[in-house]
Amino acid sequence: MSEELNQLKVAVILSGCGVYDGSEAYETVLTLLCLDEMGASVSCFAPNDKQLHVINHLSGDENTNEKRGILQESARLVRGEISDISEASVEAFDAVIVPGGYGAAKNLCTFAVDGAEMKININFQSFMQQAIALKKPIGLICIAPVMSGLLFGKGVSCTIGTDESTADVIRATGGIHKNCKVDEICVDDEHRLVTTPAYMLASRISEASKGITKLVDKVLQMANK
Amino acid sequence: MSEELNQLKVAVILSGCGVYDGSEAYETVLTLLCLDEMGASVSCFAPNDKQLHVINHLSGDENTNEKRGILQESARLVRGEISDISEASVEAFDAVIVPGGYGAAKNLCTFAVDGAEMKININFQSFMQQAIALKKPIGLICIAPVMSGLLFGKGVSCTIGTDESTADVIRATGGIHKNCKVDEICVDDEHRLVTTPAYMLASRISEASKGITKLVDKVLQMANK
Repeated sequence: MSEELNQLKVAVILSGCGVYDGSEAYETVLTLLCLDEMGASVSCFAPNDKQLHVINHLSGDENTNEKRGILQESARLVRGEISDISEASVEAFDAVIVPGGYGAAKNLCTFAVDGAEMKININFQSFMQQAIALKKPIGLICIAPVMSGLLFGKGVSCTIGTDESTADVIRATGGIHKNCKVDEICVDDEHRLVTTPAYMLASRISEASKGITKLVDKVLQMANK
Repeated sequence: MSEELNQLKVAVILSGCGVYDGSEAYETVLTLLCLDEMGASVSCFAPNDKQLHVINHLSGDENTNEKRGILQESARLVRGEISDISEASVEAFDAVIVPGGYGAAKNLCTFAVDGAEMKININFQSFMQQAIALKKPIGLICIAPVMSGLLFGKGVSCTIGTDESTADVIRATGGIHKNCKVDEICVDDEHRLVTTPAYMLASRISEASKGITKLVDKVLQMANK
């Protein structure tokens, strides 16, 4: 891929900062590293809404007296270089990638609270629906694929690894779940969706890196076609 | 390096979460990725003190009504797997690496406020002094090498890239500054110190990755001798 001639533009959508209430830091940074190494340019976006809650990442407890903003906290992961997703122009991008972390299941949608009855954040949903309508290839990492049925509709294939209760939710919302190893990807060519389990299964950062590298490579290949 | 026979143990010291008031996320995750890929095991530590302040990473402004803890926020970058540096046993580790970000200059020491008159966080200083006394190889990334003169004493060589005003502080505190490219490292074999500019100079994550990969590799080589 020649950077000068045809640099692909990828939107990366974040959901806060830190695995327990936001975007998982390793998955986010590994995605950005792969995109840069493969010659793509990146713009990051997040919803400008309050997080579901704030988790003390040391104790695992909720800080009930604290409110934090998804966009403002996401900015911590990406050196402040991020914008409100409601202001993003889908047409400007060749592909979209959403890293995981509980933020995907708490802030981008309500899966963590509502299971199969989940609702998707309205501005994130609007962005994704446009991207899907425009047939932009999409990469969803870790728990983010739990939204696949709602985003793509009946018959979309994806993976969240091997967790059966989460796979049940994907099936209940119209998706087809495929078991997948941590260092592999699940590809739905028809829907132009690529998914990988990452920290749904990873026990080491180098394991997550292998799956995410394959996902980024495949998404960029699809965008080039 | 055979993982089973002789896995090196590395302590990584964090200073919060996010470039403007804590550890820089890219430098932190790239360090952890390299260590894992090169077969080392990692334990993360941070001081259990309040951050100097909290910066809104979207606007760049200080959130003057907010206090956050260095250890609790650092935990966001590493999936909660981090401990108080005052409880760390230096003897248990073969090497120490400190990623950058303003947290290194605001929370691990007072360089950002006091320049050459900086003081070093007491528990961080105690840990580092023991590591240096035990001749553990040490890697300092980005702005963290500004503490080199105070930590190692007169005559230590290091780099923060090419910024002359920061280099002046290194010289004023007894260090020798060597200019260094973003994808290179500065090695002081006598003091067993390795430094790299990373985001003191980097304009892309893949640039920072090259220098950090060399730093981690060199620190592990030193630890094996």
